[in-house]
Amino acid sequence: MPSKVDHRERRELLADALTRLAATHGLAGVSLRQVAAEAGVSTGMVQHYFRTKDEMMTFALGMVADRIRARSEAEAAAATPRELVRGVLLQILPLDETRRLEGHVGLAFLAYAAVKPAIQEGLREGSAGMRGFIAGQLRAAGAHGIDTDLAAIGLMALVDGLGMQLLSRQFAEKDAIAALDAHLDLIFGGS
Amino acid sequence: MPSKVDHRERRELLADALTRLAATHGLAGVSLRQVAAEAGVSTGMVQHYFRTKDEMMTFALGMVADRIRARSEAEAAAATPRELVRGVLLQILPLDETRRLEGHVGLAFLAYAAVKPAIQEGLREGSAGMRGFIAGQLRAAGAHGIDTDLAAIGLMALVDGLGMQLLSRQFAEKDAIAALDAHLDLIFGGS
Repeated sequence: MPSKVDHRERRELLADALTRLAATHGLAGVSLRQVAAEAGVSTGMVQHYFRTKDEMMTFALGMVADRIRARSEAEAAAATPRELVRGVLLQILPLDETRRLEGHVGLAFLAYAAVKPAIQEGLREGSAGMRGFIAGQLRAAGAHGIDTDLAAIGLMALVDGLGMQLLSRQFAEKDAIAALDAHLDLIFGGS
Repeated sequence: MPSKVDHRERRELLADALTRLAATHGLAGVSLRQVAAEAGVSTGMVQHYFRTKDEMMTFALGMVADRIRARSEAEAAAATPRELVRGVLLQILPLDETRRLEGHVGLAFLAYAAVKPAIQEGLREGSAGMRGFIAGQLRAAGAHGIDTDLAAIGLMALVDGLGMQLLSRQFAEKDAIAALDAHLDLIFGGS
């Protein structure tokens, strides 16, 4: 393989192949061999960049999280804490092709992590960070009469649940967005 | 095989084996052969009762839903709509070994359904029924200032999200229950 190929870039290329497979087949049945075929490289090449499937899955989830974070930074100039939180959460919901692919990775990863305690740690850190951000924004908005930490747990659960239900097409996208807005009204007090 | 064995009973026995596998391995990688081994029967026996894996998974999910419904009926004598809704939703959250097993089936089924549009229909019916029940209870409680249909979408998403996050141990059970109660306060107006 060309020695100049950037290590991270190559790993991202393989993680993208995994992402596409996750969207069509789920993750539990996916092998390194299938990822190699999807990426158009040899199995040995995949093994060079990822020693195990768990390592590749953890990397793919981190990559998705980084991309969501990068898109969310565009929201940082939003006028109010509520608009900021809403903008970030809309980046998580599967509302276009990119976010649907990411949503499939997230859901497949959760289903996988539920039976693999060893890889739950990375998930916990990411979700705790997200809840801390939401609780902070609620306090910045002067939300009163609610426990901001519990509200952050509830809001993240609601968004994860909406995303998961949208992926299996349980209701229309506009209903998911309306349900999120109704919930933001309740916890931000219409601020 | 003995001709007197009840068809439904045998299917439940096999679905129970699938449930146990879902809790330890997820569902996407599970084969009819593994279910047969887990249930201690032949692969031919499994094929006699379920023609396809999708058919067995749909049956297993229906069985889990029936059991949750049966447990929920004990809540029907609850004093208020809020207590009734709370009692039913607590039957869905993975708060003991039985409900954790059911939660794994639900999560694995959702991850599977997300990439198998053909089996999303059964899921849609069940979840629409549950949301209708919640919206009705909100109206019965005289909840005002909220759209009860949107609040029902939000509450079911929140509970599915909490359940999914509990399965991967993202926070403590008591925090999940407290977040649910805080949310019920908001939509039932502390009624």
